[in-house]
Formats: sequence, structure tokens, C-alpha cells
Amino acid sequence: MKPVAVVAVGGNSLAPRGERGSFADERRHARLAGEAIASVLGAGYRVVVTHGNGPQVGNLLMRAERAQPDLPVEPLDACVAETQGGIGYLLVQAIENALHARRLPGGVVAMITRVVVDPGDPAFVLPSKPIGPFFTEEEARRRERSLGWHVGDDAGRGWRRKVPSPWPVEIVELDAIRVGLDTGVTVIAAGGGGIPVMRGESGLSGVEAVIDKDRVSAQLAAALGAELLLFLTDVDGVALHFGQPEERWLDRLDSREAKEYLEQGEFSPGSMGPKIEAALDFLDAGGKSAIVTSAGKAAAALTGKAGTLIVARRGSKSSRVA
Amino acid sequence: MKPVAVVAVGGNSLAPRGERGSFADERRHARLAGEAIASVLGAGYRVVVTHGNGPQVGNLLMRAERAQPDLPVEPLDACVAETQGGIGYLLVQAIENALHARRLPGGVVAMITRVVVDPGDPAFVLPSKPIGPFFTEEEARRRERSLGWHVGDDAGRGWRRKVPSPWPVEIVELDAIRVGLDTGVTVIAAGGGGIPVMRGESGLSGVEAVIDKDRVSAQLAAALGAELLLFLTDVDGVALHFGQPEERWLDRLDSREAKEYLEQGEFSPGSMGPKIEAALDFLDAGGKSAIVTSAGKAAAALTGKAGTLIVARRGSKSSRVA
Repeated sequence: MKPVAVVAVGGNSLAPRGERGSFADERRHARLAGEAIASVLGAGYRVVVTHGNGPQVGNLLMRAERAQPDLPVEPLDACVAETQGGIGYLLVQAIENALHARRLPGGVVAMITRVVVDPGDPAFVLPSKPIGPFFTEEEARRRERSLGWHVGDDAGRGWRRKVPSPWPVEIVELDAIRVGLDTGVTVIAAGGGGIPVMRGESGLSGVEAVIDKDRVSAQLAAALGAELLLFLTDVDGVALHFGQPEERWLDRLDSREAKEYLEQGEFSPGSMGPKIEAALDFLDAGGKSAIVTSAGKAAAALTGKAGTLIVARRGSKSSRVA
Repeated sequence: MKPVAVVAVGGNSLAPRGERGSFADERRHARLAGEAIASVLGAGYRVVVTHGNGPQVGNLLMRAERAQPDLPVEPLDACVAETQGGIGYLLVQAIENALHARRLPGGVVAMITRVVVDPGDPAFVLPSKPIGPFFTEEEARRRERSLGWHVGDDAGRGWRRKVPSPWPVEIVELDAIRVGLDTGVTVIAAGGGGIPVMRGESGLSGVEAVIDKDRVSAQLAAALGAELLLFLTDVDGVALHFGQPEERWLDRLDSREAKEYLEQGEFSPGSMGPKIEAALDFLDAGGKSAIVTSAGKAAAALTGKAGTLIVARRGSKSSRVA
């Protein structure tokens, strides 16, 4: 049986900051992601694709805001589900068309995926993840009263809604994802971190929260016994002192080095940090390697010619940081 | 192997006219649909669920309209994909929770589904299906110029965008749906009639169109060799002279009678007509029976105690209309 790779496509890599984020723009970026994923399939892996949804759910919340009070506000779990539909479709098309161009066989299916969270998760005590449009404090407070939102200042940029980002406990559709993989289908799953649900007396019910897609990707990769966890993001790899004069790109990191850099605050909490943490979780759970790179460099990264490879430190073997 | 039933859930049955259409409202209606589908599973069928998306895509287009011109307009194929996500999630939860309450086993998965249409379909010559918000003629004409929409008067109620409603040619995810069914999973597929795509040199690409969900449901049922095609709609069954003093509910119809009533214009083109046509297509393709009923009456309809049963006319056997 071919090894499994989980490929996590960043929401920002499909809708980069500074672009309008039209579906045609997203389609153009998705084409690159599709080609990257076709490379992974071509390299002999079975593939599960996960994806972020930050900019997309942001647009959706912005549209909903404009339709206030005429149209009802949708709960966040429903919004995540809608982005799974939209982005899932985008990626299915992009991957299939990339396979078609390479004359590679194989179907692709996007599955609506729920992820169970724990009502006792500390994230519910103080919602901390900012989402959706920016408001003045007064506008935000009004929504706090009328909609029961938790609101707060987002790093001095304005007031926003803040929601809990609880830890993923269980991927509800895991068996169905496995069945898909086993029949040779590339499965797109756990989009936007998965639709957050809680288990109760009468089954599962949706929760107003968002789940970190990097964490879920690592958990999914571990549960599937994947060999590779590949993050496609908007930079070509991992750097130390990113964006500073002494910036240094890393082509290889072992888990102890990664942990040290993480503790030293080398990786930004909102973007590279969660990827490195997820890579470490995956390696701890027995994963063979994680790669961080852009869609355009993915094919080269698979043969060690681009991107950053993160591997478990084995025994006393010395680390090599290029 | 258990027989297959395709259950088609009406978009209006989840968001009836006159209600606000909040997600909580939809969840309440979806609960009934979930119980109906659990009854079908309990009666020994493997089940594929399809669903409409009329009111839901309408809300989505309305929100998009309000965000003009700040946020880009999404193409209709992307909108259909988003509603597949939102409604798919709603139905997955409702069906699983109904199974949970009855202590019945079985997973449920919603799949993003594309349906190939023919670029030569006559529907593309004169787009006829009205969608989204109502405008004045002037507003509609402005959008015709700026967005390239086709617009027209909708039965004297106002101007709307009109889109093609081409015939479904092929359900792209058919194999994956079959695999799901064969492994005991209830599959939700072809929501909103499926995402319309066309086959070209470089693979599949999305089309600005909507596909009739009743037609697709019949085609899917035929392709899966289903025995039963069950329409869950907002009325309890099929009636002659519907809404008039001489209204007469039918508990059984054979295909010839159904065809005759259809030709006599007994069934309204926008609602019951397409269901009867789809039922006839399914019976022509070898299906055993079709049922039209509401979610609340579905369990009774399975044993002939409610709803309208439509069966193929066999040989010279006389028809029985109760």
C-alpha cells in the first residue's frame, strides 16, 4: 500500500493579502496548489488535502454583516461548512485538472468534515481568535449586546469579534476519509479546521468556534498513519529572523532544533508558529517528515531541492541546519 | 445487498416561505427530514440523499448583492458549492442525530458533487430560471451591463437575474457515491442539483447555471439502480386541482396516469411538475417506485399509509387511483 501524505493548503495561499479575493483569483492560486498536489500523487503517495479558510470566512462574515438586519446571521459552524463547500470545489477542480494535464488517473472528492471539541476546553473561557470585519469599539459593543458576541481589540487594528479556538479531539468523518484513500481517491477534508461540534445527550451539535487547521492536519496525518505532512503556504520555507536583515532560510530542521527556535519566539504565532507546532506534534506521533513550502516549490521540495524539511531527531544523530 | 433509495429533500422544505430562514429554523426543519431518512434506513434501504437549495442560494446572492461593490461577486457554480457545504452539514447532523435517537448504527457523509452539462444544451440559448433578489427594471439592466447577467421579468413580480437550467449529463462523483453506499455510509450528494461543470480540453470548468435537483435525483437513482425515489417536499402528497375547491389527493398513480395529468397541466411547473417528470424518468429507467410526501409523513408513506406512490404501469393491469 502506498504511503499517505497530508497536504495542508493555507487559506491565505489561495487568497493572498492585497488581492481582491475574487473566485477567479482564487482559481488561479488553486491551480498552483492543484499542481503541487498532483506532484505529491505522482511521487507515489495517497493524499488527503486539508485547507484553511481565513480570508474566505472573512468575506462571508463581511457579506452577512452588510445584509444586517434583513437576513439572519448564520452561526460560525454553518459558515465553516459553506467555506468547505466553496474551497472544496475549487480544490477538487484544480487537482483533477492538474492530474488530467499530466495524464495521471485518480478521482478527487471533497467531504464535509466535522471535528469534535471538548466543552471543557480552556479556549471557551476567553475567546481569543479574531474573525470577520473590523469595527469601532462602539459598533463592536452594540453587536456584543445584540448578537451575544465576544468582542475585543485586535492588536490595535480595530475591534473584532473574537471566538474560541479549541483543540481538535476527534475527526468525525475519519472512517469515510480512510475508505476514500483505500479506494484510490484523493480526499479533501477538514477544511477550515473542520466544523466544530460537541458531543451531547442527543448526538452532535455545532459550536461557535474555529479550529486551527494546522493542528487538525497534524491530528489527521497521525490518525491516518501518514508518512508526510506537507504545508503549502505563502512563503517558500521556514526562516530564522524572518523579514529582518539577518534572515536565514532553513532547508532542514530536526525536531529539537524546531522546538528550541519555537521557544525562542522565532516563528510568528499567527502563521509559521502553528505550522511548526503541528509538524512537531505529527513527528511526535510517529510521522516521518514534515515539509513547509509554497505551492510553486512543492515539487522541488519533495526531492529536497526547496522548502524546509522537518524530521524527528533520531538517537544521538547530530542536527544539520544548512 | 440491501436495495438503494434516493431521498430528495426540497430546499423549501428546509426553509419554507414566510419564515426568516435562520439556521436555527432550518435546523428544526432538517430534524424532520433526518427522522424521515432514518425511517428509510430503518426500513432496510441504503440511502443517498439529494437536496434543493433555492432559498439558501437566494439568501447567499442577496448577501453578495449587499456587499457590492466592495466584495467580488462569486460565480453561481461557487455559490452552489457553498450551499452544498452548508445544507450538507445541516443534513449530516440531522440524519446522524435521528439514527442516534433510534440507536441505529451508520455514518453519514456529505460529498461536494459536480454534474456535467452539455454546452450545446438549448437552455444556454435563452436562460429562463430566475434566481436571487428582485430588482426594478433599471437596477436589473445596470447589472446586465456591469456583470453580464441575463435579466428579465419574473412573472410580473419584479426583475431578476435569469440563468440557464441545462439537463444533467453525468454525475462526476458517481463512483465515490457508490463506494460510500457499498461501505454502509449514507451519502448526501448532488445538493442544489449539483455544481454545473462542462468538459473541455483542460478538464472540467464551472458554468453559470443551475441544474434541476429533481432531474439529477432521478438520474442518480437510475445510475445507482435504486428501487425507490422519495421526494420530501412541503406538501403531504400529489393532488389534482391543487388548492382549488375540487382538490383531490392521490395515494397512488401509475406512470400512464401521471403522464396524462402532467400533459393536462395538473402539476405546477415550478414545484410538483418537475417531481412527477423526474419520477417518470426514474420509472422509465427501471426504478420500482417513487413517492412524493412531506418529511413528517415519510415513515407512513413507506408502508402506503400516506403520501403518493407512483409506479410503472405493468402490462394490462388496470390503474388504481384512490
